Amino acid sequence: MPELRKDPVLGRWIIISKERSKRPTDFLVEKAETTGGFCPLCPGNENTTPSEVLAYRKNQFAKINEPGWQVRVVPNKFPALVIEGDLDKEGEGLYDKMNGIGAHEVIIESPRHDINFADLDPAEMAMVFRAYRDRIEDLAMDERFQYVMVFKNHGRAAGASLEHPHSQLIALPVLPRLLVSELEGSLSYYNYKERCIFCDIVRQEIKQEIRVVCQNDRFITITPFAPKTPFEMWVLPKTHSSSYRRQDEEQLYGLAEIFSESLQRLDRCIPGVPYNFVLHTQPLRSENLEHFHWHFEIVPKLTSIAGFEWGSGFYINPMPPEEAAAFLRESL
Amino acid sequence: MPELRKDPVLGRWIIISKERSKRPTDFLVEKAETTGGFCPLCPGNENTTPSEVLAYRKNQFAKINEPGWQVRVVPNKFPALVIEGDLDKEGEGLYDKMNGIGAHEVIIESPRHDINFADLDPAEMAMVFRAYRDRIEDLAMDERFQYVMVFKNHGRAAGASLEHPHSQLIALPVLPRLLVSELEGSLSYYNYKERCIFCDIVRQEIKQEIRVVCQNDRFITITPFAPKTPFEMWVLPKTHSSSYRRQDEEQLYGLAEIFSESLQRLDRCIPGVPYNFVLHTQPLRSENLEHFHWHFEIVPKLTSIAGFEWGSGFYINPMPPEEAAAFLRESL
Repeated sequence: MPELRKDPVLGRWIIISKERSKRPTDFLVEKAETTGGFCPLCPGNENTTPSEVLAYRKNQFAKINEPGWQVRVVPNKFPALVIEGDLDKEGEGLYDKMNGIGAHEVIIESPRHDINFADLDPAEMAMVFRAYRDRIEDLAMDERFQYVMVFKNHGRAAGASLEHPHSQLIALPVLPRLLVSELEGSLSYYNYKERCIFCDIVRQEIKQEIRVVCQNDRFITITPFAPKTPFEMWVLPKTHSSSYRRQDEEQLYGLAEIFSESLQRLDRCIPGVPYNFVLHTQPLRSENLEHFHWHFEIVPKLTSIAGFEWGSGFYINPMPPEEAAAFLRESL
Repeated sequence: MPELRKDPVLGRWIIISKERSKRPTDFLVEKAETTGGFCPLCPGNENTTPSEVLAYRKNQFAKINEPGWQVRVVPNKFPALVIEGDLDKEGEGLYDKMNGIGAHEVIIESPRHDINFADLDPAEMAMVFRAYRDRIEDLAMDERFQYVMVFKNHGRAAGASLEHPHSQLIALPVLPRLLVSELEGSLSYYNYKERCIFCDIVRQEIKQEIRVVCQNDRFITITPFAPKTPFEMWVLPKTHSSSYRRQDEEQLYGLAEIFSESLQRLDRCIPGVPYNFVLHTQPLRSENLEHFHWHFEIVPKLTSIAGFEWGSGFYINPMPPEEAAAFLRESL
């Protein structure tokens, strides 16, 4: 059984999830694909994954776990958390832990093995965003969960172990520490100004223009004022909303337009760049929040990043976001 | 001029330090040594570094910037922050920034080019720890600085760009966000328990034994209860002290004994493993703190870490610290 453990000083929860019996030196080796050319995510191989929890098919009378899907969501075969069981919160002296209960799912973004997520057309990408929303909505009914973390690893260096385009979600019985910090920081601004800090950021960025990558009526992509890495991008809705769950089809299509354009611009600037993106949205058990604003953060994984940031939490970024935005604007 | 910029939501300061005119694709390429076999840190090449700010020589009448030193500290030739100038704090709309004022120094740990830090004998390593202390003491006199971050990148993957054994320090006019979180977390424990949380951790770890890597009378190395990465280690003094600056020679020798043993055990488990370590100590402008306890965190840089942790701040660790500690105990 995996475990959730809390750092007693920082209050940060981590997952201890032992994959299998590993020797210490195994941690030095890049994870290799273990499927030997066979792709478990491709159409026709549906029986090699756990049974699907969601799929969109044009033919609504089609059978589950058979081809014909456009987006398909399955439980992760090697989950970091397990769905069955009780949390059994307990102490170990001054430490806190609980059973590693949660959901860990794979969102297969397309039936096509060789396409990049960035190259899906907006209608296809919007279906992926719809799958995120529908799965969050479903998992929210499980009272054990506090948050659903949605993320994508693109490229081996960013942690992707399978080539077929996919993203992941992890439903957690705790809140990620970084989200708690965002909630606290934005609340403290709201208490002072009575405005959402993200709404103020969107307004200022539209006015200043220098960090804008692209925008449409509904969404804007910026390089943030104080980015961790070169070419980091945030994608924000222009209208206040704290919850990704409440986005309708039209809104998700607008998101897909800007998201695919942003990723294409990034890939044109730095061909083949590995990246991660993470959805930031309100906790499952919150009412609408006036002070928080859902958004995506896209973080390129660049080898020139010095390692000490990892240990210190202090970032040195050699690329001013204004210059990164200019490169991105000129790239298409 | 580099800039310090504050993330408006998280309150985290980062450094924007443009190295030179870079094309976007340059960020994909591993930093190569640009010295072409020539080592600017080796004895005899003292004139190729900025003038030393500290050096320990056996012959106390020796000239500065000449060979004969055992440990030598010089300003970084390519500093992330610059020492001359005023902070000029200012706003840009809702954002906050200031000039990138600070010190960035290189601690050359040995005259020997080919030795690993882990293989210095305790007396030699204690001199490196003494150099950290003496430089912090000196930089504390500059009223602009709030904190001195001391860290080491070992191995190319961990960000080291020169082979010759060296660590670095950066004096900052702000506090790193992670340190602020540690100060807040430990204060909140102290307010509740009236005990230092790190002292309680040391007591519990000595009693439980399962996460102890090694110890002597003065210091203990543990794998922390909720580690970010496999084989993460913390080195803590057994007696309460919030400030690294107050350690005497005897104490630093005890630290060197345990530190070198810990790194040798790590390297025996995972030969050639790249790692970072970071000193955590109290802010320069604090009085002694009852609730905080200085320590080092040693974080191996392992390629099997998925990239999304970087973007989400949420860690999945496939190696329970109790097993890591057992591997480390059995390795020598």
